[in-house]
Amino acid sequence: MSKTNPGNYFEDFKVGQVLDHATPRTITEGDVSLYTALYGGRFALQSADSFAMECGLDAAPVDDLLVFHVVFGKTVPDVSLNAVANLGYADVQFKAPVFPGDTVKTSSTVIGLKENSNGKTGVVYVRSTGTNQMGATVLDYVRWVMVRKKDEKAPAPEEVVPNLPDRVDPSFISLPEGLDFSGFDATLAGSPHYFEDYDVGEKIDHVDGMTIEEAEHMMATRLYQNTAKVHFNQHQMQHDRFGRRLIYGGHIISLARALSFNGLGNAQLIGAINGGSHTAPTFAGHTIYAWSEVLEKAELASNQTAGALRIRTIATKDMPCDSFPDKQEDGKRDPAVVLDLDYWVILPKKTMAV
Amino acid sequence: MSKTNPGNYFEDFKVGQVLDHATPRTITEGDVSLYTALYGGRFALQSADSFAMECGLDAAPVDDLLVFHVVFGKTVPDVSLNAVANLGYADVQFKAPVFPGDTVKTSSTVIGLKENSNGKTGVVYVRSTGTNQMGATVLDYVRWVMVRKKDEKAPAPEEVVPNLPDRVDPSFISLPEGLDFSGFDATLAGSPHYFEDYDVGEKIDHVDGMTIEEAEHMMATRLYQNTAKVHFNQHQMQHDRFGRRLIYGGHIISLARALSFNGLGNAQLIGAINGGSHTAPTFAGHTIYAWSEVLEKAELASNQTAGALRIRTIATKDMPCDSFPDKQEDGKRDPAVVLDLDYWVILPKKTMAV
Amino acid sequence: MSKTNPGNYFEDFKVGQVLDHATPRTITEGDVSLYTALYGGRFALQSADSFAMECGLDAAPVDDLLVFHVVFGKTVPDVSLNAVANLGYADVQFKAPVFPGDTVKTSSTVIGLKENSNGKTGVVYVRSTGTNQMGATVLDYVRWVMVRKKDEKAPAPEEVVPNLPDRVDPSFISLPEGLDFSGFDATLAGSPHYFEDYDVGEKIDHVDGMTIEEAEHMMATRLYQNTAKVHFNQHQMQHDRFGRRLIYGGHIISLARALSFNGLGNAQLIGAINGGSHTAPTFAGHTIYAWSEVLEKAELASNQTAGALRIRTIATKDMPCDSFPDKQEDGKRDPAVVLDLDYWVILPKKTMAV
Repeated sequence: MSKTNPGNYFEDFKVGQVLDHATPRTITEGDVSLYTALYGGRFALQSADSFAMECGLDAAPVDDLLVFHVVFGKTVPDVSLNAVANLGYADVQFKAPVFPGDTVKTSSTVIGLKENSNGKTGVVYVRSTGTNQMGATVLDYVRWVMVRKKDEKAPAPEEVVPNLPDRVDPSFISLPEGLDFSGFDATLAGSPHYFEDYDVGEKIDHVDGMTIEEAEHMMATRLYQNTAKVHFNQHQMQHDRFGRRLIYGGHIISLARALSFNGLGNAQLIGAINGGSHTAPTFAGHTIYAWSEVLEKAELASNQTAGALRIRTIATKDMPCDSFPDKQEDGKRDPAVVLDLDYWVILPKKTMAV
Repeated sequence: MSKTNPGNYFEDFKVGQVLDHATPRTITEGDVSLYTALYGGRFALQSADSFAMECGLDAAPVDDLLVFHVVFGKTVPDVSLNAVANLGYADVQFKAPVFPGDTVKTSSTVIGLKENSNGKTGVVYVRSTGTNQMGATVLDYVRWVMVRKKDEKAPAPEEVVPNLPDRVDPSFISLPEGLDFSGFDATLAGSPHYFEDYDVGEKIDHVDGMTIEEAEHMMATRLYQNTAKVHFNQHQMQHDRFGRRLIYGGHIISLARALSFNGLGNAQLIGAINGGSHTAPTFAGHTIYAWSEVLEKAELASNQTAGALRIRTIATKDMPCDSFPDKQEDGKRDPAVVLDLDYWVILPKKTMAV
Repeated sequence: MSKTNPGNYFEDFKVGQVLDHATPRTITEGDVSLYTALYGGRFALQSADSFAMECGLDAAPVDDLLVFHVVFGKTVPDVSLNAVANLGYADVQFKAPVFPGDTVKTSSTVIGLKENSNGKTGVVYVRSTGTNQMGATVLDYVRWVMVRKKDEKAPAPEEVVPNLPDRVDPSFISLPEGLDFSGFDATLAGSPHYFEDYDVGEKIDHVDGMTIEEAEHMMATRLYQNTAKVHFNQHQMQHDRFGRRLIYGGHIISLARALSFNGLGNAQLIGAINGGSHTAPTFAGHTIYAWSEVLEKAELASNQTAGALRIRTIATKDMPCDSFPDKQEDGKRDPAVVLDLDYWVILPKKTMAV
């Protein structure tokens, strides 16, 4: 029996199957520092224990996207080692906050299967759940990937396609227990703009650009213990159609989020991710820019001091975003666009219900 | 109203104005490890809790320059976003030591303004103060920068130029409470040379060289949450006169300090920085070397076990320092010189007053 | 007197001499995170406090190789600053586990000297011991290096060549106190293969490859406070015969160990290192692959829940290991091989003595 992990092929998945993923991971202050060094985030709640305590928390919580990357990374060896393409994700809900010292693990349930007509591949839908050492859910999301069949003659499974929401209903957004923005210090947070100051339809150019180096995206992706080999092996990738190591899509999401501070500086937490597309590959040497559009605003019944903005953030490579590059006249996306992310962010409200 | 930060222009500053900067930052063991990985410092006091405890402290303090970079980084969005040039700093005094877990924030007071005769720019002088979560000052310094006017027709302010000291008076040097070098273990510290062993006028070639990579200086500068875009955006900088990302000057200071271990290994703390010039830009690929000269020696009334050396450290790019490159015969600086830093370091004394 | 460290030359060493090395180092969660970011290790015991607690420990121990690199790095300024070549190491025994917060220092005893017939160099044998802040030994090993004489006329010392074991006797392997694999969760650990599942003679291709960047190996080597200048100074190394910075051999060991997870995922600890050769230099841009062979299996009298596998791991550059590259027909090593490491790893046993 081979000792190496062959990964799962399409025919290995069954609807209802539960996959308990390796490796549990204690997230520490060291990870938080590296995350800052890799992206340069400046959101106050994650940056300073004292600020988080003024907002009712025990300490600065770990950045939501760092939690996402760690939880996600664990699914790769079991779900997407033989994947052809990562097709999408939906219903990404952040639940219990993670603090340094918490240990996170992930399990996934197969919730859908659909063989492609070519008989060579199929789409696997999984709901993945990250839990902490107390068993509380920290993150829950659906992902679907196209996976190769090992044996093309293996019979097609019964087709099950889950019904996925277009967006996370804002009433489902879970804020950290005790979070209270009623004494929010906007000066210290670095932005004068509260929930009420944003309008649906408003577009924001985040102005700044960040160039990516090979060492950075590889350190990030290893930090998340994500083992997808396309990110790490230049000797193999030189023969690929791009001839380059591909950058983990999550690295671009984190860069775009950090860049969005300039314009969304009070977006202290990500409430949920509704969906996202990595519309073009990125490589070392690319400079990432971003802009955002406010899609929707929602009050939060569970917290009178905060509101949720539904944001669409577009990231580009080697193209400033002052012209808000997006779909072109012919309906095609501008080729500089590399990410189109739809998510809820949480901001303090100016007019608090007292 | 635009949601992005336009920064302040020269006419936005008023003498006496107080700027409370974002973002507070908890400095952790993770930051300390990254700092070691980026520069390779080996000063014992910052490296080992046990060594620091033998010297009377509760734990290893955070490197003075890491504190400086974090405090400094916060001033960039408010003070120097529209700067043409960083002209200098003076009277840099390190006060309460910072330990992992402390949260630092910065505020600045405008202490001087001087419009340039071209009417397009002016010099802004600020005194910036970093404080910890207990409100104690950890760092205090003056910086002056040349800032663009937004509206060239804006009237010139009354000229106020602060009177700045050439050097920090050594009687102002503040050592960590409890610091006691009477049992100093020079073997463990890695240098047999005490305060008494250095002579004014002595020159030391620090021998070693360190080559800089893009990923390193960008990770460092993001760790400090310093957002100056010239360091990060190759897509924009390719059109600049150098065609390259500029390296944050503080990165060179930290490299020079780490290199200075070879010759100044017992310089356990920086007491103060008297002034410094970044005399030429540095780019990834440059190898940094350094040499130092002892300018002055001072006893410390507040601590009988330590003495202060006033040091001038010169860093060069792509040029070893065995010939002590400096001003040339024609009075011009050797073009390989990139940094000229004047500061006080604290060393244990061999002959302790008991 | 020059203030810089000249290092020791061959004639400076005496058999029996004790060298107490600078600089003590507190190993923290920050170092652990960086180690993960640099190599991407996924061994469960080091990754999660909760997993380590299920295995009877108080917390996740620091990776054995991170401890090795820190302990080793300290010996460089005193032992190998004037070395021509690092010839080998043997009898590397890991003792007390290191946990974040522990402070490590190193001292070495000269145990052998042998001048070379050319009268210009000699071989120095040292036994180096790393201890923690309680004085417990964490690591003990023998290394021998070829060191230059400063004065070729200095008389040759009496020749003393220590008798070194071919391998560490497995009865000497010291496991962390309390370690108990009787409830080992192989699913969470990421591998179904226990001690009993491996056969002597079995070969495992670890499949994955990892490309090295300059920033990565330099950050790693500085993290270990290893000052050997060949790793850092491109300005000097451009004139060397390779024209490149050499990568610290320990960086390759750590990469090979991380890659070995794919096939040896339950090898939770390194019990001892029997010996190793860095058979060719590696440079940034090289992609490292690895394969392993099981040389020997041993029960551990001190722990019924674990067994020891003696493993030989071969790492290559720019060459996949599916053909197990090794010695060629003419007896020469395949030129792609860069590392040949012989060591004991500790795995849980499936059939526990209850």
